[in-house]
Amino acid sequence: MQENYFQSNAPLAGKGLPAGDAWTPSTLAARGASILDEDVSLPAAVLSESALRHNLAWMREFADAYGCRLAPHGKTTMSPALFRMQLDAGAWGITLATAPQTQAAHTHGVRKVLLANQLVGKGNFDLIADLQARDPDFWFACVVDSVDNVAALARHFGARGQRIRVMLEIGSEGGRTGVRDESQARAVLDEIARWPDAVALVGVEVYEGVVKDEAGVRALLRRTLAQWQAIHAAGGFAETPALLSGAGSAWFDVVAEEFAALAGHPAADVVLRPGCYLTHDVGIYRDAAERIHAANPVARRMGRGLKPALRLWAHVQSLPEPGRAIVGLGKRDAAFDAGFPLPALRHRPGDTTPVDAPAHWRVGAMMDQHAFLQIEAGDDLKVGDLLCFDISHPCLTFDKWRHLLVVDDAHRVVGAIDTHF
Amino acid sequence: MQENYFQSNAPLAGKGLPAGDAWTPSTLAARGASILDEDVSLPAAVLSESALRHNLAWMREFADAYGCRLAPHGKTTMSPALFRMQLDAGAWGITLATAPQTQAAHTHGVRKVLLANQLVGKGNFDLIADLQARDPDFWFACVVDSVDNVAALARHFGARGQRIRVMLEIGSEGGRTGVRDESQARAVLDEIARWPDAVALVGVEVYEGVVKDEAGVRALLRRTLAQWQAIHAAGGFAETPALLSGAGSAWFDVVAEEFAALAGHPAADVVLRPGCYLTHDVGIYRDAAERIHAANPVARRMGRGLKPALRLWAHVQSLPEPGRAIVGLGKRDAAFDAGFPLPALRHRPGDTTPVDAPAHWRVGAMMDQHAFLQIEAGDDLKVGDLLCFDISHPCLTFDKWRHLLVVDDAHRVVGAIDTHF
Repeated sequence: MQENYFQSNAPLAGKGLPAGDAWTPSTLAARGASILDEDVSLPAAVLSESALRHNLAWMREFADAYGCRLAPHGKTTMSPALFRMQLDAGAWGITLATAPQTQAAHTHGVRKVLLANQLVGKGNFDLIADLQARDPDFWFACVVDSVDNVAALARHFGARGQRIRVMLEIGSEGGRTGVRDESQARAVLDEIARWPDAVALVGVEVYEGVVKDEAGVRALLRRTLAQWQAIHAAGGFAETPALLSGAGSAWFDVVAEEFAALAGHPAADVVLRPGCYLTHDVGIYRDAAERIHAANPVARRMGRGLKPALRLWAHVQSLPEPGRAIVGLGKRDAAFDAGFPLPALRHRPGDTTPVDAPAHWRVGAMMDQHAFLQIEAGDDLKVGDLLCFDISHPCLTFDKWRHLLVVDDAHRVVGAIDTHF
Repeated sequence: MQENYFQSNAPLAGKGLPAGDAWTPSTLAARGASILDEDVSLPAAVLSESALRHNLAWMREFADAYGCRLAPHGKTTMSPALFRMQLDAGAWGITLATAPQTQAAHTHGVRKVLLANQLVGKGNFDLIADLQARDPDFWFACVVDSVDNVAALARHFGARGQRIRVMLEIGSEGGRTGVRDESQARAVLDEIARWPDAVALVGVEVYEGVVKDEAGVRALLRRTLAQWQAIHAAGGFAETPALLSGAGSAWFDVVAEEFAALAGHPAADVVLRPGCYLTHDVGIYRDAAERIHAANPVARRMGRGLKPALRLWAHVQSLPEPGRAIVGLGKRDAAFDAGFPLPALRHRPGDTTPVDAPAHWRVGAMMDQHAFLQIEAGDDLKVGDLLCFDISHPCLTFDKWRHLLVVDDAHRVVGAIDTHF
């Protein structure tokens, strides 16, 4: 039997639920609530089960074609149910950004975490050291880009009789973290070598997403690959296979292409870390997908690409003047840093099915709890109508919800997932 | 004994806690964690207890001076502990923006809610009708600005044998919700009058915060006051006293001044609804406070104004190139829509006390989990240093945290509050 990831006994509370107390994903599924019948308090965030499953299979096929492993970035969703779905679909591990995210994932059964970020500060060291002390089977590595951070990690984990796995992070001038040049890399590697009992170098990592053009991305990836090869040649890795890891959600095709040089290498694991593929969007990541489908032969061969799986439903709450609808959907409900939500469907209570939203409907501004929708005089829109919005930037939409409903293609609730931000 | 609002047995989890499991506000307080000693995983959000108590007393004194009641906007914090603190300090009730917020507040003991927003959709009607059915002492009113919404409310609450309290919302051309003119107001009032058993008109409401200049704000407030007086003169209110309510966090002084016309009126309750005063900020609301202190005689007489009570602590995680520090604080941790967080303090582990951050340190960009801090070559900053940030826009900072630590003036944790977004 296929596991149902969207039913559980986790208590749910807050916005986006039907009336009544003490919902869990399982009781919600049993309730059989319908978005179209207004059974749910809006605004609500919904995930399309069919689109999630499509995207899951799509990325697995893509990574397999390049002989890459997947460690999906879990910071996007911070949802244990989705982590389990990804791991069951063959993911090598889960990527995370912070120690508390790691703790949450471990609590929910994740046993292999790549922290694609520096681990800094005693409070965060303690969180990870506690997990390692409690669970000898827990595999964890973080990235390093400074001598001071390596030394601090070494002192802390060494004092607890532990060894911390680290990956050298390669960065680019004007970018985010990561060593900028060979001399910085050398200094960090030398510091790692000073602490063989406390620090284990297990790979090389890069986040290419801060580079804006393909040529720059490829140059950075080649530098990263060369660094891996140099360390490998010098016998500098403490574990085999050693990791070579890159890829956010925008350039994973280029990373797969460049790192394919190590595919099948017995001493290497190439690990891709996209996070947003699971829900996709109709904004920044649709733009990225269009580039990928135009440029990447594997993606082209696979045909239909990723599908947007995350949507928001909200009510028209006021039509106060011509050309303006006020919608009960705000900055507290949706990402707004990479384009506002886009109206996709309009549903009138009592109707059987929703209709497509006219292309000229546009959110022009948002406040904490409201969206200002630009419409035209004569548009068929009433106070009380339901609007379904596509979104841009899943990460900053997920973190506005303590749970998201999972729906079938008829907008019926088939379960829910909770989030642990 | 003064109640301790910051200790409770609510389970806490997630970011911004010390290592160890199963924290509650009470066990945290007993632990006596120190931010400066790095006992807490960063980033962490902290509230200054002394600043909170100062702001609470300040606003009470201000409202008392004008004979106004306070219904602090609870959407800002969505924290039952802070609601209780506000109610114990004499607040008339709590203002909220949505039905699920109302449900959460009611669950935690709030018995009087002014929904400064339209209540729309069957899912939301049911949430409120369930509360009214379960708790006859629960006082709730929402605002209305359309015939369709009044009719929908009347049908739903009437069918359940209930009456829903509503306030007519006055709005301005180019603004958000609210009737724009006399003919819209008339239509809504006529519709309310059609449903005497199901809809009770209990006041007039305005949100002046969408108007940008003082003259416009005053004109809108005078229209609102005139509307209240006209309805009162016609015997149109269903309850006495009838409410006249306005004020977000930026213009509460002007609202108090204009609505002072009804102070002491036996048939009127003037209700102010600021939300951000409790934590204040160093951005949009500091700007507003400067105007208030320059213009309002009561505020001037009171001397010291509101204090920023909400701050964020984070680590310097990388110093990858001259002039740039990467800080472990992102869009997931802080509001970024009204200015980025501002560095206030720098603390080096091992030092006794923090030092002021140089005025030229500025956050120039943020990503989901990172801030890009602009510094100068030669600045005394190391990987692993702690930075304390002031913020702009408390609402969109609170909703990024499931709990916030409460600290004393020495940055020791004295408790915590949980949030219910």
